[in-house]
Amino acid sequence: MKLWQKKVRLDPRIEAFTVGDDPELDQNLVAYDCIASIAHAKTLKKAGILSAAELARLTAELKKILDLHKKGKFRITRDQEDCHTAIEQHLTRRLGDLGKKIHTARSRNDQVLAAMRLYMLDRLNAIGKEADAFMQALAGLKKRRGRVRYPGYTHTRKAMVSSVALWCDAFIESMRENIRLLALTRTWIDQSPLGTGAGYGIPLIELDRELTAREAGFSRVQKSPVFVQNSRGKFESLAAHLCVQIMMDLNRAASDLILFSLPALGYFELPESLCTGSSIMPQKKNPDVLELVRAKFHETAACGFQIQSTTAGLISGYHRDLQLTKKPVMQCLDITARSLGIMSLVIRRLRVNEARCKADLTEEVFAAEKAYALVQKGVPFREAYRRIAEQLRSS
Amino acid sequence: MKLWQKKVRLDPRIEAFTVGDDPELDQNLVAYDCIASIAHAKTLKKAGILSAAELARLTAELKKILDLHKKGKFRITRDQEDCHTAIEQHLTRRLGDLGKKIHTARSRNDQVLAAMRLYMLDRLNAIGKEADAFMQALAGLKKRRGRVRYPGYTHTRKAMVSSVALWCDAFIESMRENIRLLALTRTWIDQSPLGTGAGYGIPLIELDRELTAREAGFSRVQKSPVFVQNSRGKFESLAAHLCVQIMMDLNRAASDLILFSLPALGYFELPESLCTGSSIMPQKKNPDVLELVRAKFHETAACGFQIQSTTAGLISGYHRDLQLTKKPVMQCLDITARSLGIMSLVIRRLRVNEARCKADLTEEVFAAEKAYALVQKGVPFREAYRRIAEQLRSS
Amino acid sequence: MKLWQKKVRLDPRIEAFTVGDDPELDQNLVAYDCIASIAHAKTLKKAGILSAAELARLTAELKKILDLHKKGKFRITRDQEDCHTAIEQHLTRRLGDLGKKIHTARSRNDQVLAAMRLYMLDRLNAIGKEADAFMQALAGLKKRRGRVRYPGYTHTRKAMVSSVALWCDAFIESMRENIRLLALTRTWIDQSPLGTGAGYGIPLIELDRELTAREAGFSRVQKSPVFVQNSRGKFESLAAHLCVQIMMDLNRAASDLILFSLPALGYFELPESLCTGSSIMPQKKNPDVLELVRAKFHETAACGFQIQSTTAGLISGYHRDLQLTKKPVMQCLDITARSLGIMSLVIRRLRVNEARCKADLTEEVFAAEKAYALVQKGVPFREAYRRIAEQLRSS
Amino acid sequence: MKLWQKKVRLDPRIEAFTVGDDPELDQNLVAYDCIASIAHAKTLKKAGILSAAELARLTAELKKILDLHKKGKFRITRDQEDCHTAIEQHLTRRLGDLGKKIHTARSRNDQVLAAMRLYMLDRLNAIGKEADAFMQALAGLKKRRGRVRYPGYTHTRKAMVSSVALWCDAFIESMRENIRLLALTRTWIDQSPLGTGAGYGIPLIELDRELTAREAGFSRVQKSPVFVQNSRGKFESLAAHLCVQIMMDLNRAASDLILFSLPALGYFELPESLCTGSSIMPQKKNPDVLELVRAKFHETAACGFQIQSTTAGLISGYHRDLQLTKKPVMQCLDITARSLGIMSLVIRRLRVNEARCKADLTEEVFAAEKAYALVQKGVPFREAYRRIAEQLRSS
Repeated sequence: MKLWQKKVRLDPRIEAFTVGDDPELDQNLVAYDCIASIAHAKTLKKAGILSAAELARLTAELKKILDLHKKGKFRITRDQEDCHTAIEQHLTRRLGDLGKKIHTARSRNDQVLAAMRLYMLDRLNAIGKEADAFMQALAGLKKRRGRVRYPGYTHTRKAMVSSVALWCDAFIESMRENIRLLALTRTWIDQSPLGTGAGYGIPLIELDRELTAREAGFSRVQKSPVFVQNSRGKFESLAAHLCVQIMMDLNRAASDLILFSLPALGYFELPESLCTGSSIMPQKKNPDVLELVRAKFHETAACGFQIQSTTAGLISGYHRDLQLTKKPVMQCLDITARSLGIMSLVIRRLRVNEARCKADLTEEVFAAEKAYALVQKGVPFREAYRRIAEQLRSS
Repeated sequence: MKLWQKKVRLDPRIEAFTVGDDPELDQNLVAYDCIASIAHAKTLKKAGILSAAELARLTAELKKILDLHKKGKFRITRDQEDCHTAIEQHLTRRLGDLGKKIHTARSRNDQVLAAMRLYMLDRLNAIGKEADAFMQALAGLKKRRGRVRYPGYTHTRKAMVSSVALWCDAFIESMRENIRLLALTRTWIDQSPLGTGAGYGIPLIELDRELTAREAGFSRVQKSPVFVQNSRGKFESLAAHLCVQIMMDLNRAASDLILFSLPALGYFELPESLCTGSSIMPQKKNPDVLELVRAKFHETAACGFQIQSTTAGLISGYHRDLQLTKKPVMQCLDITARSLGIMSLVIRRLRVNEARCKADLTEEVFAAEKAYALVQKGVPFREAYRRIAEQLRSS
Repeated sequence: MKLWQKKVRLDPRIEAFTVGDDPELDQNLVAYDCIASIAHAKTLKKAGILSAAELARLTAELKKILDLHKKGKFRITRDQEDCHTAIEQHLTRRLGDLGKKIHTARSRNDQVLAAMRLYMLDRLNAIGKEADAFMQALAGLKKRRGRVRYPGYTHTRKAMVSSVALWCDAFIESMRENIRLLALTRTWIDQSPLGTGAGYGIPLIELDRELTAREAGFSRVQKSPVFVQNSRGKFESLAAHLCVQIMMDLNRAASDLILFSLPALGYFELPESLCTGSSIMPQKKNPDVLELVRAKFHETAACGFQIQSTTAGLISGYHRDLQLTKKPVMQCLDITARSLGIMSLVIRRLRVNEARCKADLTEEVFAAEKAYALVQKGVPFREAYRRIAEQLRSS
Repeated sequence: MKLWQKKVRLDPRIEAFTVGDDPELDQNLVAYDCIASIAHAKTLKKAGILSAAELARLTAELKKILDLHKKGKFRITRDQEDCHTAIEQHLTRRLGDLGKKIHTARSRNDQVLAAMRLYMLDRLNAIGKEADAFMQALAGLKKRRGRVRYPGYTHTRKAMVSSVALWCDAFIESMRENIRLLALTRTWIDQSPLGTGAGYGIPLIELDRELTAREAGFSRVQKSPVFVQNSRGKFESLAAHLCVQIMMDLNRAASDLILFSLPALGYFELPESLCTGSSIMPQKKNPDVLELVRAKFHETAACGFQIQSTTAGLISGYHRDLQLTKKPVMQCLDITARSLGIMSLVIRRLRVNEARCKADLTEEVFAAEKAYALVQKGVPFREAYRRIAEQLRSS
């Protein structure tokens, strides 16, 4: 039984196709939908739709669902389609006519947005924490081994002297910029869509949208109901872009470590507890974990790409197309948090082989330095550059 | 216990991260891995590695796995990581030392490719069948209602007279081109990777690669072992592009039906059994199914994009990155087959409202025709065009 | 003659391929490179590399280049490869040995970043102004015609009452969020890369990086030299994402206007001065301008996609690959500013057909409202919903 | 003056925006439009619209345009918008009323498709030739140095013995598959759109479409006029995907060469005539050309992505959006042909350092081989694998 059930039965193939994997994905949303529903119920009470007693009973029952969910005992059947229907039906089963009142002055369109946003905000917090841990791991590595110098590369060729400290700082600073973007992403998402109905407001009933926002835990109210709907996909795109930015850094860090732990260079080493082996070559110590982090950048980018493309060419207002933004945004938020966690572990365990680093600081790495020494003696830079180039060629 | 298990224990977080969702995805590959393993065993027998009796025992046991799998009783544990390990361990548990022989002259690198390709070929066949059914549904609609004329559009504006037959033909012809591409995609994929090991061939042991290919059901042998590995991601990209091409057509057909069933136009109608409703607006009959087909084009495109990006910047040879092409290729092959099935259903049930079609064939739709009538009287086309434009403006 | 010219002559085909379209693209960077060079010269003076007189002569000559450039008379030859070489050669031609000093303590790697960032900041300002104008155009439309009510849509189906004011507000509010993102994008980009050389700092010479930053017009110094290089592509990705977010809104606004100006609906009308015609159908008034804005979303997205993919799999430090991020970032910043300008024009000229809007507010658009009227009489919402649905079906 | 010029003047800002860079891009199409126009004129003669004398005069004048174009003297003004208008206006200026007849029974919609397809077929031929040359370059390298053995890699780690021959074969075989796809792409594109007008056929006038196809050089007629329009973007997507497949291979080959010419490995060497230098580090020999080839994969992918996304959500029939597919398809066809040419040059000049290759074939590269030697003595493979792993660990 669906919220919009009518007399003509939906063809079962259409039902299967449209329900898709919402029942599974919506397990992530149950708690947030309950929280938003409690906030909505409080607002309905203020609007005179619910009595104080009714509010109390609804709230109590919603908290029971929260509890069931925590224990892994709240189920969403395929027939129910999504968590919103499952929760409303649970309420109606327990509370009769009172359960039928909760959907007053609400549409699934604003309801799903509320749950998705609370979910995303939580995931963004998790990413923020993992990002902090990653920066701490880098700070630890810098403290431990920062002074070790090794060749810095341009064009995948040795260029000038770099150091473990320089490497750590690069990723710490970059993560700080990412965290600024994370804060902005939160600002976008942290607005309450509740009270805007299907996208054109709620007629006749006066809702205190500020109250709902506060109770649900949002910092502000998103005013325009048309914008509320249009921001589906838009906000998710920003969240996905944040993930892309973080994963871009991890892709680069992983690429560095894969190359610099190449036995022919050996600046860094991964302990065997982080490496996998081969089914055919007994000698192999493979950096699979780094390769997967590297590849997950592309998975994240694909999620972002899907989200932002899906909205293209759609007119204002809700479309079922937007439902398909749910999975990729969940996926990329999850990938990002987990990849950060894994890379923190890698950084904490990373070994720096000082001897190999030092041995590879060969003469040509100091060429620019030598040119500058000439500059300091008054030779114009282009002149100095030519002299050193000449000298290296003839050596 | 993994195929490459060593003394140092892999950190459990790394293990969880690297195993990913392979145990679930690999349920799709069990049967194909058994088929390829039987073919490989026959080749090992010919190479003198297995006796006739050993081959018989291995084959029998592999068929038992096939049987268990069909009944949904073959499990892949997270500890086993993938179907290849699960199958080898099953064999070793049942057959002792003999089970340990199956991996001779084979790497997981060629093994997973064999299973993936057999899987893809099967899914491509399924898509081919669904594409046929879709063309038949269109042919049926053409036969039923092809003569109904309605306004054809350019720039989302009425342009000239079109007809249901013209519409059906467009998608039938396009699907025929897609089927050419499907055949080519099959030609690429239908080559045996078996016998190339980890990507550099099998030393010392003489394998009859033609025999393996034939027994596994491949049409030809893929010769270069380096190319075998490099084609991971490459072949999947082509399969994904085929899906993109088909979904591009379905996106367009769905877009047409969404617009042309807009009540203000009403050329087409979806029966209520294919429509969903709204949780807040009792009057709504929504074409969710068409919207989802439309949106699944973007999901498919995202899969293709992920696959082709993942290979970027990698040197020749296997990388764990490539493992992440498994899920998106499975996903887009599945989406495409199912979307074709759903659209066949829609086309079969589609109603054409002849009266509305006719009523909307208003005067201006015939403007080009009128200009051509003047042309036939000897007026140069540009002249005729200007006169009719003038006439319409003043009417 | 290139900055890095050596004795062995580069193959001319390689030269043509590597130079690419830099000479044309770099016309956009000449002014910014001069500004950054003046700032760098001041810093060299403070570092004791240049005398006050030398600084004065270099600055005067760089200002002359600025002047030449404004008049369209500064040329970059293919032989020079890019604006950096063209400027240095100009200086050397005019100032002899003094010209050869300007590149001291600088690499093209930090130099190109400085010019690109100053360029991007200027373009972001332009986008900010166009975004303001767009919001003003919308505010004007709202003031003029905001009270006109017309059907709001969900699923491309009439849903509930909307209004011109609601429509305008949606895009104004969304643009406000975009402007927050623009501010953050500026914060990322507005850091001076100068003084970090090729990506590993400048040995021996003490540079006052704060001074350079201030003189070049940057708000802060980007500290880590490795991060400076790694942020190439990363910062551009954020700028591209900002463009994607803005173009996503314009795509949606254009989609609305294309549909709502469909003669069968006729809520909005584009004046003929904004429409193009057909070469074959004299009657056509086509919304090409809106279709192009809609399509330019995809061009923008493709730019963003290219930028972010290009960095994938690269190790830290400069790679020539990054050169290819220049064109797409210029392209999407340009598209966005121009599309905003065009849409402002469209909004200012847009006509609202009140009669058609009103006529299409048919009974079913008020269904939710009717259900709420029952709710206010005490009927639980689900009950009310069913009754109205029943009533509509039987009418 | 445009083909569709009307009384109300188009706003100049709209004009500038909609014309875009068509005048420049269309320089690529002039010749093809003339060829298609001659074919169309012949068909008009057969249809009785043109006399033999008129046909002769039109043909002669179109050939003059071809001639002017070859000499770089045929200009398309911004006012003319595109090559189609420029050519028609040239004819009218020279031939008066006769020039006004050429557009009879034709729309710019089928006209631009004809020109684009002839253009694409020519570019595909060019790519085919470059692909052949690339394979020959590889065959040459194989002949020259194929027997040199060096370590093959998996996971960017030495794995087993590979050889220059294996490497060359991988790219030759892959290119052969690409050429199959090229042939299919030609089959799709090599159909005549002429005679289908704006997308709904030509009323009243009987056109011999087979004649037009033959005269224009197409192998077959594309029947459904609606499909003709719908194939815009679809066919371009396939062409772009072909380019992606080829560039994917070149990306990989370039990645191999960048790594394997790393001085620490030194298997391959690029001669200095193919390398560029650094503006700050006198010692650098940088593989810019390989980095650009690597990066151009992403540019190609972005083109493909733009083309395929642009069509999303559009209903059947022409939309101005499709105009924006012109540039990216031209771009990626051009990139691919040129990148193949450059890589052929690189391969022909590539040096193999046999001594370094040999020196790096260290003991562990033979581990799998040793395990197989045990297998041949009757040890089950898993057993052999464990023993060799043990042995390597303790050595």
